[in-house]
Amino acid sequence: MIIVLKPEASPSDAKEILARISDAGLKPLHMPGSERVVLGALGDERVLAELQLESHPMVESVKPILAPYKLVSREMHPHDTIVRIGGMAIGGSAFKVIAGPCAVETHDQLRNTGLAVKAAGASAIRAGAYKPRTSPYGFPGHGPAGLKILREIGDELGLPVVTEVMDTADLDLVAEHADALQVGARNMQNFSLLRAVGKAGKPVVLKRGMAAKIEELLLAAEYLLAAGNDQVVLCERGIRTFETATRNTLDLNAIPYIKQRTHLPVLVDPSHGTGIRDLVIPMSLAAAACGADGLLVEVHENPAVALSDGAQSLYPDQFNTLMEALGPVVRAVGREFG
Amino acid sequence: MIIVLKPEASPSDAKEILARISDAGLKPLHMPGSERVVLGALGDERVLAELQLESHPMVESVKPILAPYKLVSREMHPHDTIVRIGGMAIGGSAFKVIAGPCAVETHDQLRNTGLAVKAAGASAIRAGAYKPRTSPYGFPGHGPAGLKILREIGDELGLPVVTEVMDTADLDLVAEHADALQVGARNMQNFSLLRAVGKAGKPVVLKRGMAAKIEELLLAAEYLLAAGNDQVVLCERGIRTFETATRNTLDLNAIPYIKQRTHLPVLVDPSHGTGIRDLVIPMSLAAAACGADGLLVEVHENPAVALSDGAQSLYPDQFNTLMEALGPVVRAVGREFG
Amino acid sequence: MIIVLKPEASPSDAKEILARISDAGLKPLHMPGSERVVLGALGDERVLAELQLESHPMVESVKPILAPYKLVSREMHPHDTIVRIGGMAIGGSAFKVIAGPCAVETHDQLRNTGLAVKAAGASAIRAGAYKPRTSPYGFPGHGPAGLKILREIGDELGLPVVTEVMDTADLDLVAEHADALQVGARNMQNFSLLRAVGKAGKPVVLKRGMAAKIEELLLAAEYLLAAGNDQVVLCERGIRTFETATRNTLDLNAIPYIKQRTHLPVLVDPSHGTGIRDLVIPMSLAAAACGADGLLVEVHENPAVALSDGAQSLYPDQFNTLMEALGPVVRAVGREFG
Amino acid sequence: MIIVLKPEASPSDAKEILARISDAGLKPLHMPGSERVVLGALGDERVLAELQLESHPMVESVKPILAPYKLVSREMHPHDTIVRIGGMAIGGSAFKVIAGPCAVETHDQLRNTGLAVKAAGASAIRAGAYKPRTSPYGFPGHGPAGLKILREIGDELGLPVVTEVMDTADLDLVAEHADALQVGARNMQNFSLLRAVGKAGKPVVLKRGMAAKIEELLLAAEYLLAAGNDQVVLCERGIRTFETATRNTLDLNAIPYIKQRTHLPVLVDPSHGTGIRDLVIPMSLAAAACGADGLLVEVHENPAVALSDGAQSLYPDQFNTLMEALGPVVRAVGREFG
Repeated sequence: MIIVLKPEASPSDAKEILARISDAGLKPLHMPGSERVVLGALGDERVLAELQLESHPMVESVKPILAPYKLVSREMHPHDTIVRIGGMAIGGSAFKVIAGPCAVETHDQLRNTGLAVKAAGASAIRAGAYKPRTSPYGFPGHGPAGLKILREIGDELGLPVVTEVMDTADLDLVAEHADALQVGARNMQNFSLLRAVGKAGKPVVLKRGMAAKIEELLLAAEYLLAAGNDQVVLCERGIRTFETATRNTLDLNAIPYIKQRTHLPVLVDPSHGTGIRDLVIPMSLAAAACGADGLLVEVHENPAVALSDGAQSLYPDQFNTLMEALGPVVRAVGREFG
Repeated sequence: MIIVLKPEASPSDAKEILARISDAGLKPLHMPGSERVVLGALGDERVLAELQLESHPMVESVKPILAPYKLVSREMHPHDTIVRIGGMAIGGSAFKVIAGPCAVETHDQLRNTGLAVKAAGASAIRAGAYKPRTSPYGFPGHGPAGLKILREIGDELGLPVVTEVMDTADLDLVAEHADALQVGARNMQNFSLLRAVGKAGKPVVLKRGMAAKIEELLLAAEYLLAAGNDQVVLCERGIRTFETATRNTLDLNAIPYIKQRTHLPVLVDPSHGTGIRDLVIPMSLAAAACGADGLLVEVHENPAVALSDGAQSLYPDQFNTLMEALGPVVRAVGREFG
Repeated sequence: MIIVLKPEASPSDAKEILARISDAGLKPLHMPGSERVVLGALGDERVLAELQLESHPMVESVKPILAPYKLVSREMHPHDTIVRIGGMAIGGSAFKVIAGPCAVETHDQLRNTGLAVKAAGASAIRAGAYKPRTSPYGFPGHGPAGLKILREIGDELGLPVVTEVMDTADLDLVAEHADALQVGARNMQNFSLLRAVGKAGKPVVLKRGMAAKIEELLLAAEYLLAAGNDQVVLCERGIRTFETATRNTLDLNAIPYIKQRTHLPVLVDPSHGTGIRDLVIPMSLAAAACGADGLLVEVHENPAVALSDGAQSLYPDQFNTLMEALGPVVRAVGREFG
Repeated sequence: MIIVLKPEASPSDAKEILARISDAGLKPLHMPGSERVVLGALGDERVLAELQLESHPMVESVKPILAPYKLVSREMHPHDTIVRIGGMAIGGSAFKVIAGPCAVETHDQLRNTGLAVKAAGASAIRAGAYKPRTSPYGFPGHGPAGLKILREIGDELGLPVVTEVMDTADLDLVAEHADALQVGARNMQNFSLLRAVGKAGKPVVLKRGMAAKIEELLLAAEYLLAAGNDQVVLCERGIRTFETATRNTLDLNAIPYIKQRTHLPVLVDPSHGTGIRDLVIPMSLAAAACGADGLLVEVHENPAVALSDGAQSLYPDQFNTLMEALGPVVRAVGREFG
């Protein structure tokens, strides 16, 4: 860690801070320059983060040398982690597709959609029983009844089931019905939920928050690993920017950036990432081309009457087209499809 | 609501959608233009939102006419709501300051800080017992023990107490100790928490999420009012932008914009809004000048050793300077101070 | 165009605005609702834009129905435009790569780099003689001497030459030496330059501004077409967001979105789009997969000593690897490579 | 400057980079840590910026210690610069208001508006003869004829005149008619224009680009000072963020931040900063409260029929109200008004 002092800092300020570095068990360095005094601290600087040296009135800035995460880092764990969700393995050389409607609406809706995505080659089904809705007047999901339908359809079709948990109070029930727990974008920094989900004994799909830096996504995953769960799949789903043509800006830069830094697998959600049905296929292909480990994609038997997110949901025949187009691209980058 | 059809939409598409508008109890309008067919729906369009017309494959765009919130709107409730937190009233003509450390660290730290802010004229004390921390290795707060200290100091000094609740599981305990419940920026769209907090029977300070549009902040408040609680104070605390010179970009535009649209009072948090101690005083004055109803500001007896947010916390003498500078500005805009 | 009046607007306000709509030659519509009066104007609403109805004190909002651009629109011109830059054709079924260093540094540097990119399969060479630099102390390019080198190398290697023009004062000289004129991101809304470049009789590569919405990029292109030049290639090069892990956020959503709305070809610049050498290959593949018509990519014979943008420039052997990896992906999406 | 090497960097990589630091005349430092080797360079690191060490394949990151600007810095020039535009002095203890319409439309329009703003206490008049317009179909300003009107009205009313220059080709003509040259937000990084304007011998009002970091604004000003012109006024006019309720997000944090770092005066443009007439007065007061040296504000004799920016232009009586409200706030922060 590098600590830059303000021009008006005195030698005794430097001395005081160097002592705090030493006391924390790190090796202090003193680098007086002509315009600024710079201090260094060598060692595990995560310890130093707790010293909050940027709070000192004579400190101009603090520049970390090491990433603030550890367990999720490839430096600690060079090999790809394979996450098993039911019978599906994410990570490694295969590219997997998890598909389904935004929300569980009815038994028939989920069954028909599930049949369609299975026939087209999806490896797992997704659907929400608890839905985060911007407005209190939106459809909030069917809750426990939705979970029950989801489990039944998953069992009938032999598809692992991924669904969102929004509250620690619902965690046991959701964990009982799902093969993987999704933590949604709006809850990526709901740290109480992360701590609880980390101990629930189920694989987790962790979506990037819409204002989360990649480093913050990795730190959110670090919460899960620190709680003892390394079965974590990250998911890029678009960030919020000034562009309004699309619902979000899908940050595909994040895919190779994350893959280089962490051993955890990464999915792309092109549905939320664009918000527009007609962009889902090309962006899915782009996700495969830049190294994602799979997709999380919204499909509905009839999006025109969907209770939520219909504008970004594929029709079953479009999903079919997507799956046919994906194969050649996935293989072109040297991976296996399906 | 205005519905623009795609150029390729047929007359029967228009007919189908007009029928859905009628069925929802609204008055449909048909406006065929030379390049696009435009449909309208007159009436309470919140009903229509549930129809999700943008999901229809022949719909190009949907343009709402009315704001999606109702209970928080000044159109429904023209007069300013006064929110009472213990003996303090926020809203109306007075300008109030809530101050204290980021976190409850020790009894002495909170007592000393509390004494200082009370002497300088603060109307309430704030401090966190549960702290949202980006890293799992950060100080998470003392939890129940912190709540106890906070209540004791509040009672001793005769200052109402504002503190954050992060999880529905902690809600009863926090509500028992606090005079107002704070919902933090990271939880502004934790809808399970909002629903529960709306029913807890305590005033709420709702902070804007760092990627939340003003409309989304108002919809989050709508959750609280819809749950039966109209004792809600909004708080602007900076949004995330490309600018890295400051921790966040304090969006003061939001203050007059919100005041014109809602009857709820609005605070400004210049500490998170800037992240830099030296900017807190000028931005506090700006907040007062543009019509905020008060401040939520971080003060620590010795920020240089604070366990969190020290870099943005004022020293007690700086807080004194702030309070002295605020008076003339508050009065210059025709309000009462303190 | 839809005009929503404020709740306090009187019938005579509506009458006045309807008259202005009529006077502009459009068909006015009056739609009184229970909470707002809504007005419509059917016809070519680009005329109405000039009426600036949003300036009226009783207008709450104005909602356009049609896109504000015309000549660049696929609705006006359904077929793909093919842009010819020297012997290279961009647009249609082929995928083209334009490569070269950020700046012309020396004759040898450009020649060596040019030889390398030609051998690997690039279709044109790029390099700047005029460089926009954030700091006045940065290397500004060699100007006319750089142009001369560029032309010589282009002629020697038989590669068309693309280079940036930053000022109307330099336009004639640049046009004399280049096969295509690049308008850089910082000048995308330099409207004097756009007007002049539109009349220069050379193909144009127009880069998206780092804060430009897609609609604004298309309107900047509209300046060029309105000046009589339809040989325009758009280029996505990343937008500025809150994410700091990468230099910019490459907005690949923009590629299919733009291709659906305009007949002009679109390139991707993965070098500026990421700012990180190690991300250039995967993002190039993603660009090809989602429908881009080619790449604009920075390559330097020895990036470690480049005078600008070295961190995002590929080594010649990395460029070779890129070209080998691109072929299969380009063909997987049904296009021809090279 | 601090240089962090990649984990895989060898001792000879470190040696090579240390030699480059020495060769540039700076003092090299070698700080081997357990997980990374860190190098330092003490001295004027602006020299090092040119070495582009981040381009080296074994460099993980480069962290500057000093700000990249020099002439604009308060460290170099501690006292406030006073900029004289005609008879008006900006900077120091007074707070000045420059007002007028977005564009020169007619002699009468400008004269009536000028009379109104002068009567209300404005110190200078602003209006554009050359207008940057997003669409090629917008009103581009009257050019030379507009300049002539502007000069006449300025002379008649005894008000200094501020107007925008968009192109080096127009610079002489604009400089001949104006008392200060405005460089608009879209041209803040038009470096050819900055270099030319820096040599034109007139005071400059430099507006912040809508995606410009504060550091980039200061570097743009550095271009002007490096060209020999220290009569530079900065202007915050809102940045582009995800928020769409307002046209831009006025970044008032920037005001105290800039004032602490540079000796140049800073204005606020609340018209572009909000885009909404009803927000202009409160945000003007906020600007005064947080330390701005004045305002640049749009006023039109009849905004409802303005050819551009009418929605954000004040009516003359609103401008009067603004000026009356400003006085007490300006004096409350210890400055003189007018």
